[in-house]
Amino acid sequence: MDAPANYRPMDDRGLRILLSSIADISDLLGADTQAWRIREVGDGNLNLVFIVEGADGAVVVKQALPYVRLVGESWPLPLERAWFEWTALQTQAAHAPRLVPALYHHDRELALTVMEYLHPHIIMRKGLIRGIEYPRFSADIAEFLAATLFHTSVLGGPVAEHKARIAAFAPNTALCRITEDLVFTDPYREAPLNRWTSPHLDGIAAAFRADAALKRAAQERKWQFMTAAEALIHGDLHTGSVMLTPHDTRVIDPEFAFVGPMAFDVGAVIGNLMLAYFAQSGHESGPGGRDRYREWILGEAAAVWAGFERRFLALWRDASAGDCLMSAHFAGGGEADLTLSRAAFMRRLFEDALGFGGLKMIRRILGLAHVEDLEAIASPAARARCERRALTLARELVLGHRGFSGMGDVLAAARAIETEVG
Amino acid sequence: MDAPANYRPMDDRGLRILLSSIADISDLLGADTQAWRIREVGDGNLNLVFIVEGADGAVVVKQALPYVRLVGESWPLPLERAWFEWTALQTQAAHAPRLVPALYHHDRELALTVMEYLHPHIIMRKGLIRGIEYPRFSADIAEFLAATLFHTSVLGGPVAEHKARIAAFAPNTALCRITEDLVFTDPYREAPLNRWTSPHLDGIAAAFRADAALKRAAQERKWQFMTAAEALIHGDLHTGSVMLTPHDTRVIDPEFAFVGPMAFDVGAVIGNLMLAYFAQSGHESGPGGRDRYREWILGEAAAVWAGFERRFLALWRDASAGDCLMSAHFAGGGEADLTLSRAAFMRRLFEDALGFGGLKMIRRILGLAHVEDLEAIASPAARARCERRALTLARELVLGHRGFSGMGDVLAAARAIETEVG
Repeated sequence: MDAPANYRPMDDRGLRILLSSIADISDLLGADTQAWRIREVGDGNLNLVFIVEGADGAVVVKQALPYVRLVGESWPLPLERAWFEWTALQTQAAHAPRLVPALYHHDRELALTVMEYLHPHIIMRKGLIRGIEYPRFSADIAEFLAATLFHTSVLGGPVAEHKARIAAFAPNTALCRITEDLVFTDPYREAPLNRWTSPHLDGIAAAFRADAALKRAAQERKWQFMTAAEALIHGDLHTGSVMLTPHDTRVIDPEFAFVGPMAFDVGAVIGNLMLAYFAQSGHESGPGGRDRYREWILGEAAAVWAGFERRFLALWRDASAGDCLMSAHFAGGGEADLTLSRAAFMRRLFEDALGFGGLKMIRRILGLAHVEDLEAIASPAARARCERRALTLARELVLGHRGFSGMGDVLAAARAIETEVG
Repeated sequence: MDAPANYRPMDDRGLRILLSSIADISDLLGADTQAWRIREVGDGNLNLVFIVEGADGAVVVKQALPYVRLVGESWPLPLERAWFEWTALQTQAAHAPRLVPALYHHDRELALTVMEYLHPHIIMRKGLIRGIEYPRFSADIAEFLAATLFHTSVLGGPVAEHKARIAAFAPNTALCRITEDLVFTDPYREAPLNRWTSPHLDGIAAAFRADAALKRAAQERKWQFMTAAEALIHGDLHTGSVMLTPHDTRVIDPEFAFVGPMAFDVGAVIGNLMLAYFAQSGHESGPGGRDRYREWILGEAAAVWAGFERRFLALWRDASAGDCLMSAHFAGGGEADLTLSRAAFMRRLFEDALGFGGLKMIRRILGLAHVEDLEAIASPAARARCERRALTLARELVLGHRGFSGMGDVLAAARAIETEVG
């Protein structure tokens, strides 16, 4: 796919000219365009990100590059992903307006979106490394998950709208392909871009590549990722896609969005919290220094699931627009039967979320893209210890996801591994 | 959706003018256009079907009407379905060329397709009523199922092609909606268009509408039908969509095609064979007159599954283009592991096919659209006996689909019901 004729990566001057031509944004920033301060701050894997601050306000400008920033121009990536991200953001804003950035402008040819500058929000992953508690996080992310997943499914709306959404996001194949390769495939084979803390994890990496049961489970989840068109999912909902303060939570960066399995988003949150949990021993100033924080993380993981389940079920009970609702079948007092059906649905979603969550953990330790929670641990030996523990839980989640009776079991397994795995 | 400006239902004169303007078809039929004999023979629920015979050859012309023919103009239906049917036929022809009609011409505005006149083929359902054995049927339909389902999935080809196919067929919502309503919903509630052999089946119809476990199972399959984007399925693969002779088999009428669950097509074949099985006692000239034929039908049902499974697995073993193939993961001698994975996949497909098959049986007895196998039984009491038996097996398939160890169990259950249910 060639870049549109008018595409060019933005620089200070180009961005100044562009934004000054958009009245709403110019008003927001302040009339003196030469006083605008523009900084490129992108530290993600894929895009340019600018903060533009004027006398009256500030905005963020995110622009796609035609290649993977992490790897370079040798790995091209369609600019159209910016349009999918914009479309996903608008959909999420319709269902969870409090939990995404305000959206100001999109330029499809430039693959560029102008949105709210979130301040003093920080990327959650950095907060987790610093040991900051976020009292609103679990409730907010549970609300985001429940609202966006329910309302973009055939439980929450008409099937014709659902099919239109499937068609609209189906062309976002290149981003799905990254997930298919990096999450579900590469960690389980000798892929050139794989890396891990070596030589410490050489053995476990080889063991995972030879683990037939684990590979079969990864394969099952890959099939599900490729075929389960359940809801418009964020597609990359790790703790680097959340910006927050103790009082406010926002989900950003849904460029991987497509109509896929709900459990993938739920599992991404849980898996990334578990990575943060096992990383804590690498960040504590002395033995036991993060004991309380470590438990806070586990509590959040449990609260995310509990809050998501409660809100999703509440939406389901109150819904009337979904073409796959069962109410018509059970009209006249079948509430107990409905409850049973919904519970079976949520149970399956829980199990699949654990499976996806485990795979997301593994790929961050044995695959291409790692996470700062672990990368920031300077001592390779200490980092490897954290990573081995995370891999141990992850494998249990992927293989045993149908056996955990609830999040309590998951937390217990995590605590046991933290204590027992050296 | 309004009809295109140039749309008009064909009549003798209009069709003669149209076909004579298409050189290939005019050549095929013979130059003397006034000698062409044109008959409208549509006996289905939705369309006009013409047979056009000339001095040199014959063709069939199928044209969509903008409403459901079975119900009338009060139930509009998009003409675009003819284009989806044409696109599906072309895809099927690419993978199972021997098993679909030759395709000559499509006019999207007229919602009209010109194809091979199949002669002396008859609709399989009519052959099953007459007690005709078709030695090629099970092998041919197994090949059709395996080839079309495998090659239009992410096992058989690139995921980007799969996503494009999903997007192309996603707008075929109106036809999917018919299935969603008539198969998965209406038989389980008091729907105005439901009908059944009354008063004989009044009790069992009411019992099914009150059967919470059955409704939950129907709901699960409905969700799967709406969200499992596994392969380009025919979508209406009953024995009325098969035309054959003892020597040749063709699958027709894929206007319900979309990217959905593979098991839906497999289940449609098995369920409709089971309807034919239970209808036999209504067609035999004297007691035991159809005993041998009844067993032939059961043998075909078993052979369809066995043949499908064998062929599908063979395609899988030999494949290299699919983006969800496991071979990359298991390179270097993991054939036993792959076999296990594939067996688990096929087992799940088998179970879901039984569930879908059972639902397809129920809707033909308690819903709007019935089948000639049963409708042709003149005595309501005799028909009701056949139908009650079919409903008994169907309920077992829907509720117990995970419990049948293989087709042998299904056949044993059918035989027991045929003997024991009065």
